Amino acid sequence: MHGIGDVTAGDDLVELIAAAAPWLADGDVLVVTSKIVSKAEGNLVEVPADGPERDAARAATLAAETARVVARRGPTTIVQTHHGFVMAAAGIDASNVDKTHLVLLPADPDASARSLRAGFRARGLDVAVIISDTMGRAWRNGLTDVALGAAGIPPFRDHRGETDPYGNELQITQMAVIDELSAAGELVKGKVDNVPVAVVRGYLKATATDGPGAAPLLRDAESDMFSLGTAEARAAGLRDAAQLPDTLQHDHPAPPVDPEAVQRALETVATHLSRTTTVTPAEPSATNAVALHLQTRDTTAAGLIRLGADAHRLRAALAAESVTSIPLPHDDGIRLELSGAAE
Amino acid sequence: MHGIGDVTAGDDLVELIAAAAPWLADGDVLVVTSKIVSKAEGNLVEVPADGPERDAARAATLAAETARVVARRGPTTIVQTHHGFVMAAAGIDASNVDKTHLVLLPADPDASARSLRAGFRARGLDVAVIISDTMGRAWRNGLTDVALGAAGIPPFRDHRGETDPYGNELQITQMAVIDELSAAGELVKGKVDNVPVAVVRGYLKATATDGPGAAPLLRDAESDMFSLGTAEARAAGLRDAAQLPDTLQHDHPAPPVDPEAVQRALETVATHLSRTTTVTPAEPSATNAVALHLQTRDTTAAGLIRLGADAHRLRAALAAESVTSIPLPHDDGIRLELSGAAE
Repeated sequence: MHGIGDVTAGDDLVELIAAAAPWLADGDVLVVTSKIVSKAEGNLVEVPADGPERDAARAATLAAETARVVARRGPTTIVQTHHGFVMAAAGIDASNVDKTHLVLLPADPDASARSLRAGFRARGLDVAVIISDTMGRAWRNGLTDVALGAAGIPPFRDHRGETDPYGNELQITQMAVIDELSAAGELVKGKVDNVPVAVVRGYLKATATDGPGAAPLLRDAESDMFSLGTAEARAAGLRDAAQLPDTLQHDHPAPPVDPEAVQRALETVATHLSRTTTVTPAEPSATNAVALHLQTRDTTAAGLIRLGADAHRLRAALAAESVTSIPLPHDDGIRLELSGAAE
Repeated sequence: MHGIGDVTAGDDLVELIAAAAPWLADGDVLVVTSKIVSKAEGNLVEVPADGPERDAARAATLAAETARVVARRGPTTIVQTHHGFVMAAAGIDASNVDKTHLVLLPADPDASARSLRAGFRARGLDVAVIISDTMGRAWRNGLTDVALGAAGIPPFRDHRGETDPYGNELQITQMAVIDELSAAGELVKGKVDNVPVAVVRGYLKATATDGPGAAPLLRDAESDMFSLGTAEARAAGLRDAAQLPDTLQHDHPAPPVDPEAVQRALETVATHLSRTTTVTPAEPSATNAVALHLQTRDTTAAGLIRLGADAHRLRAALAAESVTSIPLPHDDGIRLELSGAAE
């Protein structure tokens, strides 16, 4: 859709879009670039045009938009925003705006989509609205557009419970159709031609309620297998090793220990223990079925200190295999009581 | 595109598609579901229809298709395939095929795309071909279709060096257009209706050479900030702690130490050290400007063992801050010589 021109705070986007596309029809899906929504809603911050002051203002804006840092490498910071989006630089954008402003994401993209849809309804036009933005992703080069907000269109097409022509129940459950529509919209919008709205016709049979918006597309960090960058998670593992608890964190009876996991841990440290350290199975105790005993042939102070470090190495290797260990140092070495991972 | 019907090994896909869509024209982009390409190429494995034998055959197939495991949680295994794709279950699919077969990804999707394109050219038709499949992604619920292979269409639209109407040079560099075209194609294909090909008309102005295919979309693990699942990377960090080297891994002069990083490490372990352990700055040595000294008031064997474990806790915390430490145990405690991270 050409001819929307520059958008500024307070502009009536519905009026601008309707004027540029008098041919809009019921059932059309409007894919609206988030930037013009932010601009119309005045969701910008003023920043110095250049110099270190600009960098500082940008950093402060990023910090304000960040709920948690997901990953950092060189100049790239990937964060989860307060909305829940995982995006480079929190989606803050310095393009298609004058040099003294940064454009933030819309404060509530689903609400913005509902508001635009209501505006079209007030003009007698029953359309669905998707608010889209450009995002990177893990594992694949290049960016694609996805949906930040939506109204009048379900976010997913759900295949659960359906069967294919061979009678197999479909395992693929939910297609993120509003993300796919955003991607399709991007193909026709382009980045430099002032075409901030695309129209998809023929996809939606009928719009009904506003629906759940795009929020269901957000995966919470808890259920995300990639909630942290690899380097960040690795550093967290090192911190876990620094903070291994010395007392039991779970209820008795202790979860059982996988002997293969213990074997893998012993292999992990095999070439990293002092040559004076020996590891042997220890007698079970009343509370723990599996225990290891570490001793040293070097009973000088330095030798005993090395033994303690070796015991902690082994504890870290066990923790990597989800085996919990309780250290019991005594005059003849150190006993590690093992249990499976606490739930 | 309806009417392709069931595809089996040896079928001529070009003939099937051309017969189903006699209206195809030069410049059309054909988005072809990878499954029919695999079937036509015979890239299936035979498996028992049910029982533990089927599970075992599935696991063996997954292992064969896996270059490395990226993440595992419950029944879900995300791997990098030998092609370089990061996909759940290596893209192996049991849907839209009879119960005694599993469909693998095409062996070389770019080659398959080139071959299909050549087939259409031989019929006097100049089209681009994208071979697409459904993938999950980090951070967002729902699946989208992306490109596994391509011919006759550039994988990216590149905005580098362009400026927006405000004179800002565009930072967004490369749009993954063949992924966006795959997503657009999925919207019209559906999953259960035997519609394995979508045609996008009007996007491509002219096809030229086969081009680089979809391979440039693959991000190598080295440059990927999410090359491992969070839990897996965290376990790797614990293993790093188990294997911290005791001797210097980098050349002199040692990289300088960030005092704030040391402070953060001390805070990490603060409540986790024995109450009898003290940490104090130590005199610099000839080779190391920054060193710490750990001592214990408890000079029993058990106390010295605890001191050794505490020293290793601190070493892990320092490593999490990219500070390398060399442990020098002696009769009066343990000295840690610190340096910045090796490159």
